[in-house]
Amino acid sequence: MSKPSGPSDAAPPLSPDDWGPADLAAALEAASEWTVRYRERVHELPVFPRVGPGEIRARLPESPPREPEPLGRVLEDLDRDIVPGLTHWNHPGFFAYFSSSTRGPSVVAELLIAALGVNAMLWRTSPAATELEEVVVDWLRQALGLPVAFRGMILDTASMSSFTAVLAARHRVAPEVRETGVGSVRLASYVSEQSHSSLEKAVMAAGLGRSSVRRIPADDRFAMRVDALRDAIADDVRGGITPMWIGATIGTTSTASVDPVAEIADVAARHDAWLHVDAAYAGPAAMLPAVRPSFSGWERADSIVVNPHKWLGTSLDCSVLFFRDPRPFRETLSLTPAYLQSGDGGVTNLMELALPLGRRFRALKLWLLFRCVGTDGIAATLRRHIDLASRFARMIEADRRFGLAAPVGFGTVCFRALAGASPEESDLINRGVLERLNRGGRVFLSHTELGGRYVLRLSIGSVHTRSADVEAALEWLGEALDAELAERGRSS
Amino acid sequence: MSKPSGPSDAAPPLSPDDWGPADLAAALEAASEWTVRYRERVHELPVFPRVGPGEIRARLPESPPREPEPLGRVLEDLDRDIVPGLTHWNHPGFFAYFSSSTRGPSVVAELLIAALGVNAMLWRTSPAATELEEVVVDWLRQALGLPVAFRGMILDTASMSSFTAVLAARHRVAPEVRETGVGSVRLASYVSEQSHSSLEKAVMAAGLGRSSVRRIPADDRFAMRVDALRDAIADDVRGGITPMWIGATIGTTSTASVDPVAEIADVAARHDAWLHVDAAYAGPAAMLPAVRPSFSGWERADSIVVNPHKWLGTSLDCSVLFFRDPRPFRETLSLTPAYLQSGDGGVTNLMELALPLGRRFRALKLWLLFRCVGTDGIAATLRRHIDLASRFARMIEADRRFGLAAPVGFGTVCFRALAGASPEESDLINRGVLERLNRGGRVFLSHTELGGRYVLRLSIGSVHTRSADVEAALEWLGEALDAELAERGRSS
Repeated sequence: MSKPSGPSDAAPPLSPDDWGPADLAAALEAASEWTVRYRERVHELPVFPRVGPGEIRARLPESPPREPEPLGRVLEDLDRDIVPGLTHWNHPGFFAYFSSSTRGPSVVAELLIAALGVNAMLWRTSPAATELEEVVVDWLRQALGLPVAFRGMILDTASMSSFTAVLAARHRVAPEVRETGVGSVRLASYVSEQSHSSLEKAVMAAGLGRSSVRRIPADDRFAMRVDALRDAIADDVRGGITPMWIGATIGTTSTASVDPVAEIADVAARHDAWLHVDAAYAGPAAMLPAVRPSFSGWERADSIVVNPHKWLGTSLDCSVLFFRDPRPFRETLSLTPAYLQSGDGGVTNLMELALPLGRRFRALKLWLLFRCVGTDGIAATLRRHIDLASRFARMIEADRRFGLAAPVGFGTVCFRALAGASPEESDLINRGVLERLNRGGRVFLSHTELGGRYVLRLSIGSVHTRSADVEAALEWLGEALDAELAERGRSS
Repeated sequence: MSKPSGPSDAAPPLSPDDWGPADLAAALEAASEWTVRYRERVHELPVFPRVGPGEIRARLPESPPREPEPLGRVLEDLDRDIVPGLTHWNHPGFFAYFSSSTRGPSVVAELLIAALGVNAMLWRTSPAATELEEVVVDWLRQALGLPVAFRGMILDTASMSSFTAVLAARHRVAPEVRETGVGSVRLASYVSEQSHSSLEKAVMAAGLGRSSVRRIPADDRFAMRVDALRDAIADDVRGGITPMWIGATIGTTSTASVDPVAEIADVAARHDAWLHVDAAYAGPAAMLPAVRPSFSGWERADSIVVNPHKWLGTSLDCSVLFFRDPRPFRETLSLTPAYLQSGDGGVTNLMELALPLGRRFRALKLWLLFRCVGTDGIAATLRRHIDLASRFARMIEADRRFGLAAPVGFGTVCFRALAGASPEESDLINRGVLERLNRGGRVFLSHTELGGRYVLRLSIGSVHTRSADVEAALEWLGEALDAELAERGRSS
């Protein structure tokens, strides 16, 4: 690398305001040691913490210190005051929500991102950060088997990715909204009743109103009913309302069900509606040829969100929004004042395509994932999780105390304890089982509601989860059920 | 810490999918070494890279590898292919935009955040992450001298913080928008013509239309003219339009000018308009008693944004949104489906107050900042930057070749080379000077426009900047001017 000459070289290399190299090296050594030790012992910690509201806050000083303290003391306090109040997302027994675990290469990537501290808002504010982002997003596109027509960008969360897609969709159908506001424009959006709340929130934030969202009923496999979608759109068209946006989901949050995207794409095409596919959770599974059929039709979407920070183990936050056409994003959101006008031609200024101006160098996370794990390694993890979920589901089916509550979706299993004289009692028992199980601290599951019933949910997606953890989960479920029934004076 | 007993202890501690402790330790050692070396030598690198569009992309493989590669090779490629294409925000000669440098403690904090990988979306998804966030945001509030009535949350960028405030303001004046959309509701927003583009973008994204934003003229010190604000509001009220939101700025992006917030607060109170203060850049300076008068009136705001990732050296991203009342945020944005209903009483679920669901454990950055630097140390840095900016401004005033283009604002100095027979030629010369200077690679400045004229801008806010860097900047400015004039056949 060429080295510019000048006074800067002769000047003292250190500012008085930051740690010098020796201090930084010592601090990183201590923090690295802490990191390795934490990850070695996290499986021994209660995955869900045993603290009540306000308990952690009460341990912390009310005011900040005036004088600097040694990092060693801060790390001691981290262990003493903070760790006991954490829900450990990197615990092998974390089966709640959708997993968001952090692979080693992503821990390293975050360190490098912080070391560099560049802001990829404009091409010129770090050309390599923008260009690496374009490259690794394209690597992901290839791995997922999406057509070359898709490009993309990295945002923080699926909520923001879907919101950005809603803004682009709003612009494509009603470009005047940018200047004049939503006004009397009547636009409708369509999601399944099983879709994620973030899709509805996106429409609300965009000023279109929750009442403009049609929650299309799902079938008995929790997939959007296309006949009902067609009816809803026909109703709107008759009423002079424009179908703006359809949000289809591959891997819904409750059951990881799959909407019939190919058929929905036909409907979207017929009405010129924007088709957005929420594959935030399940998207990575498109890497597996055996699972690819679940993704049929997503290649026809206008935008797709896939979250590497969920199933790929790149640390929170890393949400990829794929899109075909950057123009509606830029046209609805770009507003570049003089102090940000770069005059650079032929480059992508990613801040023009979304709301946040500042952009971390998140591309490094995907780069290290692909380089340090390889696509074969990534696929092996996904396959292992899906296999573990099938095995757990078979164990549930073979156990007369429990029953599946939905078809298994990717790595996600919904089930119930079958006890209870009435639906109400059964719900109470299942709720009790979940609370006991989570209080135990060895696994952490969450719940959902299906058909108005309280359902337990075990989702496998952590790089740290071992087959023994899944087997043990059923054992502890049984124990929790026995204890719950004993307290209720019943037996299983 | 109590240790749960059970099969998990006996199970093999490792999953096959991630680096084991020895691999992780070795990787962190290599990455730490890389980090320390990078930060030791960054002052020797060209702060603005010498690459053209597409040059970095062309160095990278078109497709991802199938097999894992050793981290050592990836770090070599980082040096060879990526670093030469970066704009080095942690270079001591980075004077462009507003600085966003990373203190050592923040590098460590990002490592710990990644090691833990928790998601603070709900209280129960990591109680300590939510409670530490409440504590450190309150520490910041105290340091800034804001009343106890303010609470806050950490978002990624000021763009998102201001957008969230706009949504809350929209809700307070027109709660029906959540359900029915903007419709025929007529709402206006007021910002100064010097305010940041993100305020206008926020209004556009919220579906209110750019035409609903009144860009109030600024006075000759680039501060919002309150008489013009009053007139604009009176016009709107006469026309049946509701004044929804006033965005005042303390530290505008061009000149770091200060709007008269106390007077603006009077106007806002009279019309029940939401007062939002954008102090993303300058906010931290409220810690200094000598500078506190610039912040007069901000304690009356409904919401305030301060970005620790700018002047406090906590790495991107860390934007604190202070607010008095969480209710309009929750009421306009909360939408909690069954699978996220926690049943926890008396706790804050931060995801209910903003659009993104997933939330990194950013509180650790503020915690390590306060603990490892202390409020005295933080204040010393701010004071040093402001002193350096004054000194640079005096040097500019003493140099007959240059002149100030605006009053010095905090650490930010706007100035021009005075050469040129006409305004047009002068602009071209100044543009040429900036391009030469930045090509030199020893400092990186940006520009703005004031009164239609091209203006150079040097903003001091990096923890790495030394007084020698500021002195050298003027020397190199002179050299760049001489070279520019020589090419034009003139002399300075």
